[in-house]
Amino acid sequence: MLALGIDPGTAICGYGVVRLEGSTLKAVAYGAIETRAGEPVEMRLNSVFQGIDQVIKQYKPDIVGVEKLFFNRNVTTAMTVSQARGVILLAAAQNAIQLAEFTPLQVKQSVAGYGKATKEQIIYMTEKLLRLPAKPHPDDVADALAVAICSLHTHTFNKVWECKR
Amino acid sequence: MLALGIDPGTAICGYGVVRLEGSTLKAVAYGAIETRAGEPVEMRLNSVFQGIDQVIKQYKPDIVGVEKLFFNRNVTTAMTVSQARGVILLAAAQNAIQLAEFTPLQVKQSVAGYGKATKEQIIYMTEKLLRLPAKPHPDDVADALAVAICSLHTHTFNKVWECKR
Repeated sequence: MLALGIDPGTAICGYGVVRLEGSTLKAVAYGAIETRAGEPVEMRLNSVFQGIDQVIKQYKPDIVGVEKLFFNRNVTTAMTVSQARGVILLAAAQNAIQLAEFTPLQVKQSVAGYGKATKEQIIYMTEKLLRLPAKPHPDDVADALAVAICSLHTHTFNKVWECKR
Repeated sequence: MLALGIDPGTAICGYGVVRLEGSTLKAVAYGAIETRAGEPVEMRLNSVFQGIDQVIKQYKPDIVGVEKLFFNRNVTTAMTVSQARGVILLAAAQNAIQLAEFTPLQVKQSVAGYGKATKEQIIYMTEKLLRLPAKPHPDDVADALAVAICSLHTHTFNKVWECKR
């Protein structure tokens, strides 16, 4: 089972591809698509789309996980992130990959066992769970890996739950 | 000079293609891409993308106009519309069409001569300016036609202004 987790953004879009083999998690690939601040927004969105589309085509994940957005402070940021989120969902649809959406609470719970875990705790846990050689950087990559782990945990849990019903 | 105006949305996405011949505006095509409420959001975004991509490829506009979003009430709505806006900007970028963004005030000013014009006034003015056989329906189509008219007015104004400098 292979999951692609994505942390949407127009400036930096983090991605993480994680495989679940038995009960072992393995980071297959991770990184960030970065776009230039001076570029027109539609070109930046195109770079994000092309980047994610390429990752999907290269690794062929079984599932694409993306965080649900909750914003109550900066609406402008919420709208910018949502535009990037739009082209990411489109990439999943065009490649016919199953999409899973999780709340930040679900992701944190899944990775750190605590729904209100801090950013540092998430970075620490993704590094340990995936036995990475160093802290994932920038933060967006750790968030993307966390979403991938959450996608795999949730999928496995649902499968076990279905078997036991 | 041909402009495509778009009123972004996931449920209903209005579009209007308007030509400026001399000083005469002519509606070439207009309508709305509608998606089903029960469908997964990524499929709905894909329908919006495919629909707009098809309109661009069919009419080959010189410019694609989209309203800038201003939201201070419902953040959830702002995020949903922004996701649709993301795939629309992507369609413009992938077809290498110039993008123009306008504030609601600019659009209303351009069509009704008054930046605080009501929805009814915008519908009335698009119908009259383009000599349509009936009121554009739903409202999203009138908004899209208004953005197309604004794109053409602004472009013409900029050209005249450049000549006079």
